[in-house]
Amino acid sequence: MAEHSTQSAARAAQPGVVELDVDRVRRRGYPEAIYCEGKSREDLRTIARLITDHPDTHHLFTRVDEEKAAAILEILPDAHHDPVARFLAWPPTPPSPQGLRVLVACAGTSDLPIAREALLTARYLGREASLIADVGIAGVHRTLARTGEFRAAGAIIVAAGMDGALPGLIAGLVSCPVVALPTSVGYGAAFNGLAPLLTMLNACAPGVGVVNIDNGYGAGHLAAQITAPR
Amino acid sequence: MAEHSTQSAARAAQPGVVELDVDRVRRRGYPEAIYCEGKSREDLRTIARLITDHPDTHHLFTRVDEEKAAAILEILPDAHHDPVARFLAWPPTPPSPQGLRVLVACAGTSDLPIAREALLTARYLGREASLIADVGIAGVHRTLARTGEFRAAGAIIVAAGMDGALPGLIAGLVSCPVVALPTSVGYGAAFNGLAPLLTMLNACAPGVGVVNIDNGYGAGHLAAQITAPR
Amino acid sequence: MAEHSTQSAARAAQPGVVELDVDRVRRRGYPEAIYCEGKSREDLRTIARLITDHPDTHHLFTRVDEEKAAAILEILPDAHHDPVARFLAWPPTPPSPQGLRVLVACAGTSDLPIAREALLTARYLGREASLIADVGIAGVHRTLARTGEFRAAGAIIVAAGMDGALPGLIAGLVSCPVVALPTSVGYGAAFNGLAPLLTMLNACAPGVGVVNIDNGYGAGHLAAQITAPR
Amino acid sequence: MAEHSTQSAARAAQPGVVELDVDRVRRRGYPEAIYCEGKSREDLRTIARLITDHPDTHHLFTRVDEEKAAAILEILPDAHHDPVARFLAWPPTPPSPQGLRVLVACAGTSDLPIAREALLTARYLGREASLIADVGIAGVHRTLARTGEFRAAGAIIVAAGMDGALPGLIAGLVSCPVVALPTSVGYGAAFNGLAPLLTMLNACAPGVGVVNIDNGYGAGHLAAQITAPR
Amino acid sequence: MAEHSTQSAARAAQPGVVELDVDRVRRRGYPEAIYCEGKSREDLRTIARLITDHPDTHHLFTRVDEEKAAAILEILPDAHHDPVARFLAWPPTPPSPQGLRVLVACAGTSDLPIAREALLTARYLGREASLIADVGIAGVHRTLARTGEFRAAGAIIVAAGMDGALPGLIAGLVSCPVVALPTSVGYGAAFNGLAPLLTMLNACAPGVGVVNIDNGYGAGHLAAQITAPR
Amino acid sequence: MAEHSTQSAARAAQPGVVELDVDRVRRRGYPEAIYCEGKSREDLRTIARLITDHPDTHHLFTRVDEEKAAAILEILPDAHHDPVARFLAWPPTPPSPQGLRVLVACAGTSDLPIAREALLTARYLGREASLIADVGIAGVHRTLARTGEFRAAGAIIVAAGMDGALPGLIAGLVSCPVVALPTSVGYGAAFNGLAPLLTMLNACAPGVGVVNIDNGYGAGHLAAQITAPR
Amino acid sequence: MAEHSTQSAARAAQPGVVELDVDRVRRRGYPEAIYCEGKSREDLRTIARLITDHPDTHHLFTRVDEEKAAAILEILPDAHHDPVARFLAWPPTPPSPQGLRVLVACAGTSDLPIAREALLTARYLGREASLIADVGIAGVHRTLARTGEFRAAGAIIVAAGMDGALPGLIAGLVSCPVVALPTSVGYGAAFNGLAPLLTMLNACAPGVGVVNIDNGYGAGHLAAQITAPR
Amino acid sequence: MAEHSTQSAARAAQPGVVELDVDRVRRRGYPEAIYCEGKSREDLRTIARLITDHPDTHHLFTRVDEEKAAAILEILPDAHHDPVARFLAWPPTPPSPQGLRVLVACAGTSDLPIAREALLTARYLGREASLIADVGIAGVHRTLARTGEFRAAGAIIVAAGMDGALPGLIAGLVSCPVVALPTSVGYGAAFNGLAPLLTMLNACAPGVGVVNIDNGYGAGHLAAQITAPR
Repeated sequence: MAEHSTQSAARAAQPGVVELDVDRVRRRGYPEAIYCEGKSREDLRTIARLITDHPDTHHLFTRVDEEKAAAILEILPDAHHDPVARFLAWPPTPPSPQGLRVLVACAGTSDLPIAREALLTARYLGREASLIADVGIAGVHRTLARTGEFRAAGAIIVAAGMDGALPGLIAGLVSCPVVALPTSVGYGAAFNGLAPLLTMLNACAPGVGVVNIDNGYGAGHLAAQITAPR
Repeated sequence: MAEHSTQSAARAAQPGVVELDVDRVRRRGYPEAIYCEGKSREDLRTIARLITDHPDTHHLFTRVDEEKAAAILEILPDAHHDPVARFLAWPPTPPSPQGLRVLVACAGTSDLPIAREALLTARYLGREASLIADVGIAGVHRTLARTGEFRAAGAIIVAAGMDGALPGLIAGLVSCPVVALPTSVGYGAAFNGLAPLLTMLNACAPGVGVVNIDNGYGAGHLAAQITAPR
Repeated sequence: MAEHSTQSAARAAQPGVVELDVDRVRRRGYPEAIYCEGKSREDLRTIARLITDHPDTHHLFTRVDEEKAAAILEILPDAHHDPVARFLAWPPTPPSPQGLRVLVACAGTSDLPIAREALLTARYLGREASLIADVGIAGVHRTLARTGEFRAAGAIIVAAGMDGALPGLIAGLVSCPVVALPTSVGYGAAFNGLAPLLTMLNACAPGVGVVNIDNGYGAGHLAAQITAPR
Repeated sequence: MAEHSTQSAARAAQPGVVELDVDRVRRRGYPEAIYCEGKSREDLRTIARLITDHPDTHHLFTRVDEEKAAAILEILPDAHHDPVARFLAWPPTPPSPQGLRVLVACAGTSDLPIAREALLTARYLGREASLIADVGIAGVHRTLARTGEFRAAGAIIVAAGMDGALPGLIAGLVSCPVVALPTSVGYGAAFNGLAPLLTMLNACAPGVGVVNIDNGYGAGHLAAQITAPR
Repeated sequence: MAEHSTQSAARAAQPGVVELDVDRVRRRGYPEAIYCEGKSREDLRTIARLITDHPDTHHLFTRVDEEKAAAILEILPDAHHDPVARFLAWPPTPPSPQGLRVLVACAGTSDLPIAREALLTARYLGREASLIADVGIAGVHRTLARTGEFRAAGAIIVAAGMDGALPGLIAGLVSCPVVALPTSVGYGAAFNGLAPLLTMLNACAPGVGVVNIDNGYGAGHLAAQITAPR
Repeated sequence: MAEHSTQSAARAAQPGVVELDVDRVRRRGYPEAIYCEGKSREDLRTIARLITDHPDTHHLFTRVDEEKAAAILEILPDAHHDPVARFLAWPPTPPSPQGLRVLVACAGTSDLPIAREALLTARYLGREASLIADVGIAGVHRTLARTGEFRAAGAIIVAAGMDGALPGLIAGLVSCPVVALPTSVGYGAAFNGLAPLLTMLNACAPGVGVVNIDNGYGAGHLAAQITAPR
Repeated sequence: MAEHSTQSAARAAQPGVVELDVDRVRRRGYPEAIYCEGKSREDLRTIARLITDHPDTHHLFTRVDEEKAAAILEILPDAHHDPVARFLAWPPTPPSPQGLRVLVACAGTSDLPIAREALLTARYLGREASLIADVGIAGVHRTLARTGEFRAAGAIIVAAGMDGALPGLIAGLVSCPVVALPTSVGYGAAFNGLAPLLTMLNACAPGVGVVNIDNGYGAGHLAAQITAPR
Repeated sequence: MAEHSTQSAARAAQPGVVELDVDRVRRRGYPEAIYCEGKSREDLRTIARLITDHPDTHHLFTRVDEEKAAAILEILPDAHHDPVARFLAWPPTPPSPQGLRVLVACAGTSDLPIAREALLTARYLGREASLIADVGIAGVHRTLARTGEFRAAGAIIVAAGMDGALPGLIAGLVSCPVVALPTSVGYGAAFNGLAPLLTMLNACAPGVGVVNIDNGYGAGHLAAQITAPR
């Protein structure tokens, strides 16, 4: 029977509700991530327990608040936890980097949680990845000064809220693809990320692929695919 | 006089504000449900008391949070309560199933509360109903493997957030109607269910009828009507 | 090679671009329809020619303007053509009706093209189908006077623009499912069908499944599935 | 000097920030209301103190939560307070009713706070006003049974969330104007009142004037003007 | 049988599609209007022919372009036709005015077609009605100079596109109700009338009832009801 | 009497409909412009005739298509006509420039009509004004090479469609105000200027004031005010 | 290395994440502001410490809630703190005013926090600035009575929520530029500032430059640039 | 002087308005494309003439309607012209393919113009590129049957209108990046490409980068960058 009792503890233990897509690595070459929003701590403990049987691949937990992180760390105490990025990975050591280098750029502290989620995703999917957090369109010379670093990357993730103009600026400087990552940072007419999302979709410079608002995981995954070893 | 005093306890006891549509079963063949959002616990206790006079038909309470459930259970202690679905039914035993089978499908834990609300609604309206909670478009083979189960149903409710693509995929596999149930699960550009709602309205495969975002009750009711005995 | 020459005549003759989903009847039980918007007359002539090899199933053409209809009728001169509904079917005689009766309701001349598209779709998919074109919410007594006809149907398609309130009104009168079909008719704040679409999704009476704006074909198809013989 | 110190207590005591539009009664014939959202309790106490000098006209406070009500009642202990409507009036006794009768209609408990705000506004602006709280479009016969009451009114305020279809239905039954009052009640695709707002603007029956979402005060004021003695 | 042949000439002659709501005058006290958009010239000729049997009440045709006007005038050659307002009435002489005076105000030539449709509707529904076409918020003194005229009206219809601020300004000057009529005139961010519509719904001065974008007919009808003789 | 006959020629000759705000120069210091959209050629000829009595101030006609320009030029044959900008001014010679310099910047041919409308407006309102039409964010070095020119201006109007990022980039380089002018140029998700509008409102660099989509006149006017002689 | 440890204290101490744009005064002539939303108290303490090395220019902190203000005041105890405006400046004494006068206008207490943020920004950027807080469109005579004060300003910032009509009204009275500042104050259909934003973009009177919703800082900065000494 | 005469022929001949970004190949490694919408035929002839001096790199013209194509072909008679894709390239022979293979997938004739624009862009930027035009989510088995072809690509462009679900489906099958290309094909609630755009941004399978609606050029460019030789 596919149905589940209503006790919240029992619920997560039922097949169908919590199931690892263990086949995914084989099928797509990348492990699955567990999106923690809307999952109970009990659900996450159950998932963490199932994961202990699969130490051969990296498991990523995204959107992990402090309480949920504590629940997962009960079961996987050596997991790598990044509270700024609300990210958790197990086994804790990233794979040895392969392929081209991923660079993540953002304008500062407000976009940092999302930018770091992208950074860590790329790293745990096997890329060398680094972060530049002090570039922006308002101080364009500071950004242009990093052109050499941008040109050394195989893919650049650019996280930006507000006007979302940074990805288009950087795309105009380089030949590699830019993954544009809109964030929900900004005043009222940013409409929780809608404004930078539209800006990025309309970037004058071609070479920009856009992901969902605040979806650092998606950006990191796409960049890892673009820079994968051939 | 149609008006009410301002004391919140007295308010619910007044006619006009809390009134059961007892005629609805006769008129439409299905009982009324009590939508609990925006109702006080006192309102709900009053409604529960009125219901005790009508044990001949099933009464459904939807969108019941823990506090409201407690208030209702004071009056109807044997009611069936499903905290995941935020659903409560009295009398507690569903009617004997008639008509065709209803199948509810969703992608996993995040959509589960809404999917279960649909499941329980169909069941308390007199259908045999079951739930598949591990299908999705990202792992399409896992979904296709259930084709036999899909084809055995008289109506399939498909709950999905994010891209909302699952109902269209399933509709393309079967000849029965699909009730598409968008949920508010997802990253920023899902816009609280707007994205899956639009996806479902635009499903390439005909045979999809869409209900409101997170409206598991409405989906279950429509599926029960589609599968009613003739 | 999967690619195509740029000559517009040659283009349609290439495999891949124009291909009939002949397998669809077997897979889903209903034939495919050809959505004619965005197809050239040459494309449509090619499709019409391919169809002549499959007279055993009904082929529907939707959104056929006068020029495109003429192109199809060159190849299929005995096709049934309904210019109001911008609809064309071949072979011209609908299948013998099976299953329950489909009723289409709308408020008058403005919604008639869409309502007729729904009507003809249901009929060519094998249902007995009829149309009531003079009901509305502004003159509610005229609508209530048809209650008997509504209750005799197995499914009711209700097409409405402007406030889109008619499907919810009718759903409150009957026990069968209502397929709500928003149209783009109305003053400015109808926003080309957005207003009636939202009204229908929010219908107070459960039992309403909504399809896309002006999608008479989709409404007729869903209604035919709901009323299919068991 | 037009500017103010930053101490929050001192701020409200400064001219310019808190000033009564005492001239309004003379200019428009109706007193001003104090919209309490965004005002501090200190602001409200200051306003209440200023009001004690003007007992010759009625002062209305709208959107008053429990804490703010307590602050106002400190200064005006005999004010009439309606916690459901989040409304407060002083002097407490409404003026003797003049002009035609105002009727407020809504579907039940969820819309009641807004409907009562409209009711009390009309009453404190000098109209006889009453409330019908158990009508709706899903159970249309129950609504039609009140036609006599509807026709006895000089103006009808109809509050509705979800599909917002009730004002158009009632407007089709009567010759007096209908003030349509959308509320933010409903499932996801009601978009916090946008859906009923659009429905009401698109009402098929003419004779409907729409006010802002959840603006019971505005609806009551407009209805009082429509029914004013000539 | 409720269905219609596909010949476009025959279609309008069928019952159900073209039917006059002759009962409406008795039920609501106001005659029906024929909204001509989406109706064929043949439909309109049929309607005009039916109307000749009912010279006892006024029949209004709205949204009549030049070609449709010609078709109607073939049958009703003495009808009153206003090409600016795209409006046509028969019998041509308005009823003797009763009730209070209706005033229509707008800012100039761009809003004139909609303002005139409102003016003529009010007049053919039996009100004395006049038009002020040179007021606006940008030249506020010119508007204030008309305060005496505004205060002499029983209801004021204010048509405005662009910022839509005029209705709120006028409402602040008078005690009678203001019917706010947004028009689709303006630069890009007016979004075809959305901007003035929102402005009017948010008018700071209470006493404003809003109708649909460019719906001069609806505004005139509502104003006629507000000013009806008691 | 404020009303007008329905003959379109007579209409424009009536007071109220076509009236020059001759007082505006005295009141605001700038002449009125005639927005030609929605005005008939007859209206424009009437306005042109009225203008011939006021050669002491400049009269601007905006949004003038070829046919309307011909009508105006019949009456004012020496008017300056710019068909790219759809702009016409009379008397033809701009006033002697005063105040600071206005610079208009855009990315190229697509934004040129709007940019030129801004340029000509500033010039006819009495400013020295020039245009740079080959800057953009995709080729940022080309833009930065103009920094000296940008810094020499008293106000810079930046017209941009698509991502609308150019105003924010330039604002970050200068100390003078930037008037951001979104245009409706771009692919689908530019939504007719909504995307650049939002980008500009969210510009990271302060110092940006935004005007309506495609409103070159408004941008030129605002820039002329900012740079007015003191 | 550009990356940062996950400890939240350490994070702010890392280069790249918290970096002052000390060059900005030289480049643009105005100091940088620190937008405090999304920054931790630890981040703000670090920034405050860096600032103590730069007492030669004014540093502004915007969107400072009570807790964050306390953190900054630990390091900069003599900073000027305005809790209504959620604003903090150091050094505490504003620069001696230069250039033209800035006037800030709003309708009352609800818009006051945003209006004061604009006021203080202008003042700390070196302008004489004052606030009028009791003007509005509903009581237009009260507003017109201040015309003399409006005309004495070099730039006027007008903050308004709800219908957002005030900036257009004031722009029609003066020759100086108006900075329109929409606020998120209002009933449902104000949509968190969208309605006043659109109104302002569509203002009939030219001379209005619009900034982001609730962006008092941006408005004050733009006004300071417009009124800068030449 | 940066300004231009108003004669439309002369306009294009002026520097600044029509200028080739010849530096772009060196800077980014890819040539510039000329977006032809909003450019006159005279502009395009001028551009074509300038191009004849740069035969060493490929020049792409996008959004070329029949009239504009004729103008360009006057100057560049041997250019490759694809009328379906509204695309033109010169020199006509694509460069020898390098890097990984690009695959373009779409559902059929309606999306073909956009899909072909993507295909040709990738090919003229130096990739081997092919097109599969008969896959879709409604007939999922037909799509899955191409899995081998999908897995052989270095990047897959997936063009889709309506529900836009195809990119997410394909992304779930492969390890290479998917470039999602929404098209404006579909019924009303597709809102000219908004629905598929949102679906793609919300794709459940990571690995999807989204470009603008109907922007085949942008999709082809991004795919060419992803598959560039290392």
